[in-house]
Amino acid sequence: MGGDHAPEAVVAGALQAAPLLHKKLLLVGRTEEIERVAGCQLPENVEIVHASEVIEMHEGPVEALRRKRDSSLSVAAGLVKEGRACAMVSAGNTGAATAVSLITWRQVRGVRRPAIASHIPSKHGGFLLIDAGASPDADPRDLVDFAVMGRAYAQLVLGREQPKVHLLNIGEEDSKGNAFAKEAHGLLKENPWFSGNVEGKDVFQQRYDVVVCDAFVGNIVLKTGEGVAEFILNSIKDQVPKTGVARLMYLPLRRLMAPLRKLLDYSEHGGSPLLGLNGLCTICHGRSDAKAIRNALLATQTAVEHGLVDCIRSSFADRQENGR
Amino acid sequence: MGGDHAPEAVVAGALQAAPLLHKKLLLVGRTEEIERVAGCQLPENVEIVHASEVIEMHEGPVEALRRKRDSSLSVAAGLVKEGRACAMVSAGNTGAATAVSLITWRQVRGVRRPAIASHIPSKHGGFLLIDAGASPDADPRDLVDFAVMGRAYAQLVLGREQPKVHLLNIGEEDSKGNAFAKEAHGLLKENPWFSGNVEGKDVFQQRYDVVVCDAFVGNIVLKTGEGVAEFILNSIKDQVPKTGVARLMYLPLRRLMAPLRKLLDYSEHGGSPLLGLNGLCTICHGRSDAKAIRNALLATQTAVEHGLVDCIRSSFADRQENGR
Repeated sequence: MGGDHAPEAVVAGALQAAPLLHKKLLLVGRTEEIERVAGCQLPENVEIVHASEVIEMHEGPVEALRRKRDSSLSVAAGLVKEGRACAMVSAGNTGAATAVSLITWRQVRGVRRPAIASHIPSKHGGFLLIDAGASPDADPRDLVDFAVMGRAYAQLVLGREQPKVHLLNIGEEDSKGNAFAKEAHGLLKENPWFSGNVEGKDVFQQRYDVVVCDAFVGNIVLKTGEGVAEFILNSIKDQVPKTGVARLMYLPLRRLMAPLRKLLDYSEHGGSPLLGLNGLCTICHGRSDAKAIRNALLATQTAVEHGLVDCIRSSFADRQENGR
Repeated sequence: MGGDHAPEAVVAGALQAAPLLHKKLLLVGRTEEIERVAGCQLPENVEIVHASEVIEMHEGPVEALRRKRDSSLSVAAGLVKEGRACAMVSAGNTGAATAVSLITWRQVRGVRRPAIASHIPSKHGGFLLIDAGASPDADPRDLVDFAVMGRAYAQLVLGREQPKVHLLNIGEEDSKGNAFAKEAHGLLKENPWFSGNVEGKDVFQQRYDVVVCDAFVGNIVLKTGEGVAEFILNSIKDQVPKTGVARLMYLPLRRLMAPLRKLLDYSEHGGSPLLGLNGLCTICHGRSDAKAIRNALLATQTAVEHGLVDCIRSSFADRQENGR
């Protein structure tokens, strides 16, 4: 029920993904509305689970969850907790999806705060930015947890071998940054997979696996990147003549922009997983279209089949044994 | 003597600006090296002031300033303090330029920390991002000071009337953000010129005058923006055929990219002023070419002629009288 184009885009994406899913797909929300969009004859592996309420995009998460006990988000998180579902996917209110996942599933033992991992496109196959929005008031120690969780995802879902971790900072030298970044650097440095600082400019120029930061900075990176990309692409588009023969001269440009638009298109990347909890929630962009939802469901299936949550759980168990 | 292309680019830019300057221009650095580049016959209003040492780009600022008493930065800051110069311009080590300005001139009464104001291009004439790099460990109260200083610059140098101030945040609603942003929002809200939060994406889409943040976040915005812009423009460029007839089909593209490249070109914008001190230092990009230095000198002249430092000083005197 969540997202700017829900339930239409969400249901359409789910139906597109259904034939490619190895398990049953549960559509959680108002049965009538879902049936209106999906039709009454659902594919064999798709089932509706009724939830009478919806948390809107701009509601305060904690208050909304307290008031709406039968929201689609609460019901879906409950299904995962009861073992009736392996994971959930939402394009709704990010704060509410994070809060309900945290309250219902709780942190993996050893993890203080959950984090959202976002796949950012770049020249070299992209990198994973973590935390992209779950825990804005993080502690420098949390960045080490984010690194461990991000590495698990990069390895299992993105197929990166021995993923390296960099700290997003305002200079490359070890001594750079504010007090928070310096402390995080000191803690990260104790781990063999840590490869030092990286600046906001360089993440796009070279190959990186996992880049850690707090959620405030992560959100700024995501949004600034999106803003600059739109600004540039629209500036180019605005200058192309709309009519007349001159327009034809710009046809090669279209061919040239297409792969770039595809690269920058968030709907290709299948949503962003919320990591560090005893359950998996994939959070999609509020503007998600059917393709974005479809890809998010498929990426979530990959994460589930590779045992992502168990892998994170055992990484933290190992760390605790080793006294970290 | 500072910058990746110094002293050649710096001296060339200075000589380009000289005919347009209403006061004498002092070139501070190693006389021999400057003369080698500039020739012995300098324009009438250009003079060399000898400084025997140079702080390199990657030296630790505080330690370097202590060790190199006769650095070009220290000598230039001294000239401003003695009243022999109105302002200084540097393309060198930003940390060292900030530190030497702070140590030599001290804060304007009422200002806790200085800030760098950076002009960011956007669809609507750009906006001023402050702090873009001077004080990474700021306090939420400092953001109110940055707003006051940024407004003075936006008004006097960029010609914005009654400039509005927005807080860079991870959501538009008043309640959004981490603890730092929430506290800053509460303090900014007491001022009539404050217009609420703005997200990293939206700053490029609409008209904004002054956007405040701490220097860590400001640096991340600047560098991410630069990285994304380069990534996109290079991706487009890489796809254009380099030879053959096909190349001709892409000629209209060049015409189309030129204004965009100009818009994104930092060398157009004349450097970034360091504000809040009893003296004015304009900090240029390390990669500055002659045009960047020329424009920085002209923007600095505008700031000096409009009495920027005095204006900031009287703004803070008024605020103190009003008990803020």
